[in-house]
Amino acid sequence: MRILIVGASGVIGHAVVAELGARHEILTAGRSSGELRVDITSVGSIRALFEQAGRLDAVSATGKVKFALFEAMAPADYEFGLKDKLMGQVNLVLVGREFLVNGGSFTLTTGVLDHDPIRQGSSASMVNGALNAFVTAAAIEMPRGQRINAVSPGVIQEAMEGYGPYFRGFEPVPAARAALAYAKSVEGAQTGQVYQVL
Amino acid sequence: MRILIVGASGVIGHAVVAELGARHEILTAGRSSGELRVDITSVGSIRALFEQAGRLDAVSATGKVKFALFEAMAPADYEFGLKDKLMGQVNLVLVGREFLVNGGSFTLTTGVLDHDPIRQGSSASMVNGALNAFVTAAAIEMPRGQRINAVSPGVIQEAMEGYGPYFRGFEPVPAARAALAYAKSVEGAQTGQVYQVL
Repeated sequence: MRILIVGASGVIGHAVVAELGARHEILTAGRSSGELRVDITSVGSIRALFEQAGRLDAVSATGKVKFALFEAMAPADYEFGLKDKLMGQVNLVLVGREFLVNGGSFTLTTGVLDHDPIRQGSSASMVNGALNAFVTAAAIEMPRGQRINAVSPGVIQEAMEGYGPYFRGFEPVPAARAALAYAKSVEGAQTGQVYQVL
Repeated sequence: MRILIVGASGVIGHAVVAELGARHEILTAGRSSGELRVDITSVGSIRALFEQAGRLDAVSATGKVKFALFEAMAPADYEFGLKDKLMGQVNLVLVGREFLVNGGSFTLTTGVLDHDPIRQGSSASMVNGALNAFVTAAAIEMPRGQRINAVSPGVIQEAMEGYGPYFRGFEPVPAARAALAYAKSVEGAQTGQVYQVL
């Protein structure tokens, strides 16, 4: 398969490239690194990405949200995450569905805060919950046999130095374990699933 | 208690007014009806609402999304629901938390499509999933003992004439049953809950 990985420079992205790259052709894309450049907050940039990417069997993606105490969160702080991690990934699907092969798949990234909240994580929870539900709904209407799933990993072991203080008591997940769920989504036949890797 | 109900003109809103109005003072607000007028897509309009409303013990709200086949859904169609039903209700909380009494409560409205999708419902699913997860996360950081819950009702019996064709096989819920969950949220002590009324 030929697989586009958007956000391949992150800890999970590296592990997904390692896991899927063993068996497939990988094309990486990111805002400031990767073989192709894309700003997922711009529909025009996403369209240009797919026009350059050529034939694709699968797309895997992620995005960013703002972390801050609820008392400090203003409307614009939520809108940042809605525009980047939520609509960035959703717009990759809306545009990408035209370009992907019949039966191609999309794998979006959510995360453990979808059901297990922490302080400063209310935007992440919102966006992850939105993506999980979107995936279950979009799956039943995808065109041409295309599939869509989400991977919802716990806090990643390799990122614990930075994230540890915010995720006390959460059992860290090695990035390589999280990457398996992306392989299940891309290489399996399921659709409308949220793979929790906890 | 003095309770503000935003979106009181809908089928569920009427039932909530009937349920809570039997024991409490109700203030209704809406875009084109109600004792006070508010456009929940405008933070300024929300602030003006709370400045007019006076002392409040509880706020209950809802909002709108676009329904259309996934193949016809464009980015702007999702943004409509994010701005109205999602951020409209979230901004009622972000602004309202300054005005509500200590221990006051917010009750947001989501819906069965959060986990049980239908054709044309991908935006509703997205928004409902976002709100459910936001409520669980915001609850652990609310100021001054304030609480926040969501009510996720099934398709409402009284709305089946219009909605029935889209919800075949869904067991309708009388609006009065859905209204009980709003009373549990407002008059109970729980927080961070999603009350499914199915």
